[in-house]
Amino acid sequence: MNCNRTITATALSKQSATHILKTLNGKATAIAARPAFILLQSRCSPPERQFSTSRPALMKELFPPPDTPNIKTTEAAWQHPIYSYEQMESIKVAHREARTVSDHVALSIMRTVRFGMDLVTGYKHDKAVANGTKDPKDAKSTSSMTERKWMIRFIFLETVAGVPGMVAGMLRHLHSLRRMKRDNGWIETCLEESYNERMHLLTFLQVAQPGWFMRLVVLGAQGVFFNTFFISYLISPRTAHRFVGYLEEEAVLTYTRVLQDIDAGKLPKFAQMQAPEIAVKYWNMPEGQRTMRDAILYIRADEAKHREVNHTLGNLDQKNDPNPFAAKFEDDSRPHPVKDIKYHKATGWEREEAL
Amino acid sequence: MNCNRTITATALSKQSATHILKTLNGKATAIAARPAFILLQSRCSPPERQFSTSRPALMKELFPPPDTPNIKTTEAAWQHPIYSYEQMESIKVAHREARTVSDHVALSIMRTVRFGMDLVTGYKHDKAVANGTKDPKDAKSTSSMTERKWMIRFIFLETVAGVPGMVAGMLRHLHSLRRMKRDNGWIETCLEESYNERMHLLTFLQVAQPGWFMRLVVLGAQGVFFNTFFISYLISPRTAHRFVGYLEEEAVLTYTRVLQDIDAGKLPKFAQMQAPEIAVKYWNMPEGQRTMRDAILYIRADEAKHREVNHTLGNLDQKNDPNPFAAKFEDDSRPHPVKDIKYHKATGWEREEAL
Ligand SMILES: [Fe+2]
Ligand SMILES: [Fe+2]
Ligand SMILES: [Fe+2]
Ligand SMILES: [Fe+2]
Repeated sequence: MNCNRTITATALSKQSATHILKTLNGKATAIAARPAFILLQSRCSPPERQFSTSRPALMKELFPPPDTPNIKTTEAAWQHPIYSYEQMESIKVAHREARTVSDHVALSIMRTVRFGMDLVTGYKHDKAVANGTKDPKDAKSTSSMTERKWMIRFIFLETVAGVPGMVAGMLRHLHSLRRMKRDNGWIETCLEESYNERMHLLTFLQVAQPGWFMRLVVLGAQGVFFNTFFISYLISPRTAHRFVGYLEEEAVLTYTRVLQDIDAGKLPKFAQMQAPEIAVKYWNMPEGQRTMRDAILYIRADEAKHREVNHTLGNLDQKNDPNPFAAKFEDDSRPHPVKDIKYHKATGWEREEAL
Repeated sequence: MNCNRTITATALSKQSATHILKTLNGKATAIAARPAFILLQSRCSPPERQFSTSRPALMKELFPPPDTPNIKTTEAAWQHPIYSYEQMESIKVAHREARTVSDHVALSIMRTVRFGMDLVTGYKHDKAVANGTKDPKDAKSTSSMTERKWMIRFIFLETVAGVPGMVAGMLRHLHSLRRMKRDNGWIETCLEESYNERMHLLTFLQVAQPGWFMRLVVLGAQGVFFNTFFISYLISPRTAHRFVGYLEEEAVLTYTRVLQDIDAGKLPKFAQMQAPEIAVKYWNMPEGQRTMRDAILYIRADEAKHREVNHTLGNLDQKNDPNPFAAKFEDDSRPHPVKDIKYHKATGWEREEAL
């Protein structure tokens, strides 16, 4: 019997860890358990898969299916556009140069935020890469970043990433109501972005759940970030979109580094671990290409899309321009902003190009 | 030449009224102009249509098309489901009896809110009808409610109606992020509701725009209502959904009264006036059935849907139950909650029926 299967699942506390172990009915031992995380290793596993993100019994504990006889699932709020592997593999790290004062403000704030995030998630990296002055490919090894550390970083990043789109969408909706003006399609793209980020989060959560310390940090971070972003968007939506654009540049960088580490054989679990069901459904992942590496490839492409969208929106007249990503174009054969990544522009479309 | 065409358009102030009149190039006279509203009567109009909501030149003043060479329009955030005329005509005024303490609280608050709205919008009605104790068909004439007064009421109602769905969607989104839990499909339905309400508002705004007084009231109302609803939803989402359910009961009543007045010949402009372009597109209105009466028929059906949705959500376990309106059902042949009004349940589905 194959007995080296690892279940990266988590318990919120020692009590629930014990509870999960009971559920597994003696078939697993905790190989690492800290307040923030717990890795379980099952004693017996089917020989065909070396790593699994879940055993059904365990997943039921973490994600109990609703007790509803007639309903099996709810539909996705937004259908995800189809990405081809070629498109996803060609996503590059990029940086849009700060040109205006507003750009510089956005960039400085983003760097401060990233510093805080790196600290909280214990992220260590080649500084030159993180600053964008060195090609990630030439970076020195990041062996200190284990699967566990990456997971903590991903989960924290994604709980924060879901905030800006929702704030922007809500503020624009309320603005449209009280000023009695059309919005020209911005709201939808903002809300869809926040939904997409939440799907990233749920994908990682089906693999592992953080413990009480990380949960506490997330609570505090959301409180501070929501209010700060809310006020910032009221003051200058243009700067706020630019800020998100810069944040997404970092997200693309982070996921690019992970993919490089996976391909360098440093993160064997991510290479083999199956992507959770929620990810397979949401991205409509093709059969045979459903590992965590594949899921991360989709996520990176999503982040690149957010980077493009927010840099573009930051170039537009916030009050009067239509959102080009929700627009119908006169001439559909020329490259123009779209919902998928067919015509990808890493640093965003300038106003004249977009409209 | 046919010279009795009325343009129900508005100016925000006397200055802009003058400006609009200049745009019309002497082809119209203001027949009624007050700070809150302005009705224009054009001197010459095409003989084929007696009423029109807009002359192109005038609409350009009110809704300037974006100055974007390649983009003509943006897509709707949510495709509206198709309603048949039979379904829409069969929508009835209804009231869900208050059963729990939470229900009674919701009902009392709603009555207070309605009192304020009636006051602000100068709404006068047969009291017995408004209280739901008398069939609207037996009500005495409401000749005091002119097209102009109805428009003011509609616009005010709809600026308020767009708030709850957005607040609920946002709070559930943030909750899902920070508690790291699935939402089971509630967020989408809430956000879609708020989008739908905004489309109602934009429909009315393409016909007439309120003046500075109403705008001021809307600003204040949104500020108070947003914050109150926000806090209420944090305290008791169940009561908040019930409150919206009751509010929608009133909305159905209001629009039912209008339809009755139209059919009784009391509101000839609504019977003949063309529905604006935005309404025709959004509801996909069939040709030949595109008057304001038709648009109001769609709007009433939407409100009935919100009534059903919110009363149903108010019956569910707020944390664990899936949203039945976003669910895929095992047995699709039996009546169950759906997105359109195929299986309409005016007072909402009980928990056991819905799940
Ligand atoms: Fe993300
Ligand atoms: Fe993102
Ligand atoms: Fe409405
Ligand atoms: Fe409504």
